[in-house]
Amino acid sequence: MKWSTLSIFVAASVVSAQTYKRLGTCPSLGCIFPPDQTDFYAGAYFDIRLEVHSPVNGTEAFKNGEIDKNFTLCIQKGDGPCEDVTKFFTVEDSKLDTWTFSYYEDLFARDAGSASVVNVASKGYRALALDEPGMYTARLKYHQTMETVAHWLVRAPAPERKAKNAIIFIGDGMTQPMITAARMIAHKSINGRYQSLMQMDQMEHLGHQMTHSIDSYITDSANSASALFTGHKTTSGALNVYVDSSRDSFDDPKYETVAELFRRKRGGAFGIVTTADVVDATPAAMCAHTRERGESAGIVYTFLNGASGDTGLNSTLAWPTSCEQPDVIFGGGAQAFLPGPDSPNGTDFYQAFAKEGYNIIHNNTQLQGVDIKKKTLGIFSKGIMSQWLDRHIYPESLKGRKNSPLGDDADALDQPGLKDMTLKAIDILQNRQKDSGKGWLMLSEGASIDKMMHALDYDRALGELLELDDTIRATISHLKDIGELDNTLIVVTADHGHGFDVYGSVDTKYMAAQTDPRKKRDAIGIYGESGLSGYTVAKGSSPDNNTIVVGSGGPNFPVQWDPRYTFAGGMAAHPDIREGWQVNKTGIRKTVVSGDGYVANPNDQPEGIEIEGTIPDDNSSGVHSLTDVSVFASGPGGEAFRGVYNSIDVFFKVADALGLGAPSSESQ
Amino acid sequence: MKWSTLSIFVAASVVSAQTYKRLGTCPSLGCIFPPDQTDFYAGAYFDIRLEVHSPVNGTEAFKNGEIDKNFTLCIQKGDGPCEDVTKFFTVEDSKLDTWTFSYYEDLFARDAGSASVVNVASKGYRALALDEPGMYTARLKYHQTMETVAHWLVRAPAPERKAKNAIIFIGDGMTQPMITAARMIAHKSINGRYQSLMQMDQMEHLGHQMTHSIDSYITDSANSASALFTGHKTTSGALNVYVDSSRDSFDDPKYETVAELFRRKRGGAFGIVTTADVVDATPAAMCAHTRERGESAGIVYTFLNGASGDTGLNSTLAWPTSCEQPDVIFGGGAQAFLPGPDSPNGTDFYQAFAKEGYNIIHNNTQLQGVDIKKKTLGIFSKGIMSQWLDRHIYPESLKGRKNSPLGDDADALDQPGLKDMTLKAIDILQNRQKDSGKGWLMLSEGASIDKMMHALDYDRALGELLELDDTIRATISHLKDIGELDNTLIVVTADHGHGFDVYGSVDTKYMAAQTDPRKKRDAIGIYGESGLSGYTVAKGSSPDNNTIVVGSGGPNFPVQWDPRYTFAGGMAAHPDIREGWQVNKTGIRKTVVSGDGYVANPNDQPEGIEIEGTIPDDNSSGVHSLTDVSVFASGPGGEAFRGVYNSIDVFFKVADALGLGAPSSESQ
Repeated sequence: MKWSTLSIFVAASVVSAQTYKRLGTCPSLGCIFPPDQTDFYAGAYFDIRLEVHSPVNGTEAFKNGEIDKNFTLCIQKGDGPCEDVTKFFTVEDSKLDTWTFSYYEDLFARDAGSASVVNVASKGYRALALDEPGMYTARLKYHQTMETVAHWLVRAPAPERKAKNAIIFIGDGMTQPMITAARMIAHKSINGRYQSLMQMDQMEHLGHQMTHSIDSYITDSANSASALFTGHKTTSGALNVYVDSSRDSFDDPKYETVAELFRRKRGGAFGIVTTADVVDATPAAMCAHTRERGESAGIVYTFLNGASGDTGLNSTLAWPTSCEQPDVIFGGGAQAFLPGPDSPNGTDFYQAFAKEGYNIIHNNTQLQGVDIKKKTLGIFSKGIMSQWLDRHIYPESLKGRKNSPLGDDADALDQPGLKDMTLKAIDILQNRQKDSGKGWLMLSEGASIDKMMHALDYDRALGELLELDDTIRATISHLKDIGELDNTLIVVTADHGHGFDVYGSVDTKYMAAQTDPRKKRDAIGIYGESGLSGYTVAKGSSPDNNTIVVGSGGPNFPVQWDPRYTFAGGMAAHPDIREGWQVNKTGIRKTVVSGDGYVANPNDQPEGIEIEGTIPDDNSSGVHSLTDVSVFASGPGGEAFRGVYNSIDVFFKVADALGLGAPSSESQ
Repeated sequence: MKWSTLSIFVAASVVSAQTYKRLGTCPSLGCIFPPDQTDFYAGAYFDIRLEVHSPVNGTEAFKNGEIDKNFTLCIQKGDGPCEDVTKFFTVEDSKLDTWTFSYYEDLFARDAGSASVVNVASKGYRALALDEPGMYTARLKYHQTMETVAHWLVRAPAPERKAKNAIIFIGDGMTQPMITAARMIAHKSINGRYQSLMQMDQMEHLGHQMTHSIDSYITDSANSASALFTGHKTTSGALNVYVDSSRDSFDDPKYETVAELFRRKRGGAFGIVTTADVVDATPAAMCAHTRERGESAGIVYTFLNGASGDTGLNSTLAWPTSCEQPDVIFGGGAQAFLPGPDSPNGTDFYQAFAKEGYNIIHNNTQLQGVDIKKKTLGIFSKGIMSQWLDRHIYPESLKGRKNSPLGDDADALDQPGLKDMTLKAIDILQNRQKDSGKGWLMLSEGASIDKMMHALDYDRALGELLELDDTIRATISHLKDIGELDNTLIVVTADHGHGFDVYGSVDTKYMAAQTDPRKKRDAIGIYGESGLSGYTVAKGSSPDNNTIVVGSGGPNFPVQWDPRYTFAGGMAAHPDIREGWQVNKTGIRKTVVSGDGYVANPNDQPEGIEIEGTIPDDNSSGVHSLTDVSVFASGPGGEAFRGVYNSIDVFFKVADALGLGAPSSESQ
């Protein structure tokens, strides 16, 4: 049975909530997690959480907030009998929890401080699984006569494994307009023909995926990564849990990730590579389960010990974890590993990982010489890693950042790039599983495409995008060299967009020469006056020059980053800013300063113009956008990534390529 | 031989031109059209134009502007001998033309009024063809020692015809972020799952194409349509010619369109449907050849008589036309047909078409009852046709426009939509060729996606996009009904983008209640606070309401267009504007008024905020963007549209599907 043949389930709602919600996935007073319309991978673990709401006041006020302690849940498969949850899953009944939370119904209520208060009765059932494909119905009966129904679909998994290995590249925040802009600045076009192409342009299969959240149409990176890696969408800020209304960030109902499944079902090697903090949303989404992506201590703890245990986690909520101790963890975010007040019990996580047999490394020199037989933790900076543009073109800007991963306030000047980390991670994963034939799974994230887009630093964002593309190119070549290319599914996608596009060129010399802000705008060339890319020709040369030059960043990168004619680009969503369309040579652009809300930094892009903000002025950066993002794939199972689909389907396609629903005996 | 294996040809240039150019495709002083890097379809007609430039002044000044009358062109196939053009093509030598033109080298030169003057010597050779696939080299020798070399590739055509019919849908200016936004406002999502999808989402094959011009990275619609329909990119504003430097708009070197080829080689039926003026860039690009897309009289003349003749065209430049008298022409643009001062010799083109056997119709009632056996000219309005949003939701706004296609200043209230026109056009084309088996070719353009994006009227733009999607859906259904679905290649794409994306929601009630412009911005909900689409629920209902409602526009359209929570979206490129994110109920939004340059219209979006412009202030609307656009395809030959490619490849793929390079005997 397919979803498209389902009759539509109707639930009434009285609240006009949009900006704020009582609880995103629970429009009625009875809440089932996983909610209506959920898809499951056969055999993957998930928790059930039930909540019955009794609003005390507000537009949904019900029985003066009197709690219903006698709600029931039954589950039926297909047209079968509806059996009590304890019988259906053969589990003990849950104890009843109760609590109270409050929320604002809209912005007027927020301004007036009029919170709506809700009393809650709840039960939970942990680490369940549905093994048989088909349609299921979960019925929650509460307040005597009320019912919430959730339709669930367990999809039939692929009968056999196609790929031995899989590598998932995430260009965080990467959209097709950005890929197009990156191509334009890094690849020369002569008479309308590109003389070289992005690696992404040359992948075998192309698809689009929809990034929206479960309860809002704009997603954040935690939520979207959860969808990509588990097949379950959730609420903004959550990692691999449905968001319940309880206070504890770690007790929300979980679902298993592709990494957990791969480890549990196939026992292969697993690695995480990112240019962000390794506890940032996207890498964390491979293993962590929390409604609060900012819980970095808990996330590091999960990497070490798994998602159940005693530090920051509720030990009564056991999770049959299998994601602990990835074979490779490479990225930034040293502050989450250093001992200190933010660390659980003052733990030195470098020591804790070393104790578990990890090699601990902190710079590119160590990375290049690392023993590829051992599990390896490479933390290369405090905070996010440095950007490609600074490392390769403006290295002076790396100084004075005091971002050494050792926490000694030195500068982290010897950082590897995404390509360095990814190729080494492949070697480690390959070496650690090659005799077993179990294969490996890896995440490689170009995280700062997103971070630089947030900063409206388009040059750095495109530098990161080109570094990702270069990494994919090198990965394909390296996999070929080691004989694993035909065994490896390669998937490249993003988790969401930023509404960036290029719309012309800027004669920066002319703009600088004008004093009248309106006259400065005459420097912008649109349509035919946009001309050809100034980034692909040597300094002082014309964009019409047909010579192919390789710049200091190497082939497939711009020849120069500050041509006289730069690109005019940007996005609709931004705080108050100044814009002059010139590369910032001293490090990441600082567009705003704190004022009455954030206001444009007068020292940013001094020769440019000022543009009024279009988002709330308590937000200091650009924001995510709605657009579908591209998926590029090659290798075994890659053909499944063609066409248009939901973000959750990326998980199902990867899991099927790896045969995670197929009998173990068949696929190893 | 493939382009990728070519060694790179190098030509030096001394001018730093970008905003302005001497001549886009001619960086050296010797110009060959078709220029270096051109691809040809075997057997398709094209002209050769040669120019030798002698700049009198400026940075390229050469021999005081002395003209070279003794230049020569030779052509070689592969490694063969380089034969004089007259021998290679067995044509008479061209007479020598001379002229002078001037241009500005940059904005400073423009401000100073310092034009650079160039003397030109030129020859031209008309209606040639290269039948044999392979690499060719054209060598222009001039000024005694100088040489310009053009490498040409004649691609091997598909050996046999796959599709009997082809329909090309163009969503003018349509990007993936717009498709995503249209899906969000028209299709209900429950817990992260769309309950219905766009038709485009469901097409068999997905691709991306790159839209850049031959000499600028931002294209206009004439240039990009030329690329899609002929396989040749050109300069902004040009239709199916390479732009030379002569004054005459119609004497530039031509190349054959897919419609001309289809008529000439296969003799099938051909139709044009658009919601713009039928002489607008995209429909004109099926048949017209002019460097100036605005030459509407010449374009109408071409539809009637072909691209050679005596009205506005140079009769000495014969073109073996085969595009004259399309079987169907439907759209707006009555002003180009009515007799008057703008009409060649005061011609009444309605009468002229009637004289050639056309049915002439002017409203939807006539369209529905039209005789499908006859050639039909349907002109339904002066100027562009009315938008879906006004026709279906705000019909009062149609009054007072005085846009009757009869030129009598009445209102054109009974206009068909794109779906009406497209389905009827299919019936006419099908009926006019069904006994011959020759098939038909059709263009159906949703033109006002672009026009409304230019106007920053996002609601109307998305309405047009949804109408296009609805038209594709109905077309597939209709082709199935008449038994032609399996015979028909369907391609859906765009010609360029606008940098639009959605980034949140707006609580319009809250925004209206604030007086402080910065406080108004608090009404914008980002990330999780964007919530669910307010457009898919009945008035007064919550976005969380899971009921599926069909609005007055029918299924697959929004239920309401003015929910309390609208989407926050926009683009980086715009004039000074006001923005309140509310639908304009009285017709197309008027964002600017004339002031010192264009300034924000104080009456537009009165409850919104003001945003500074980001383009030259003599530009009154949004502008095109760089992004690759999506291609959706189904039917025979559709699999070729997968992956990432250049805009020109769309032509080659359509031509191959229709077997336009295959021997006639094989394919009919």
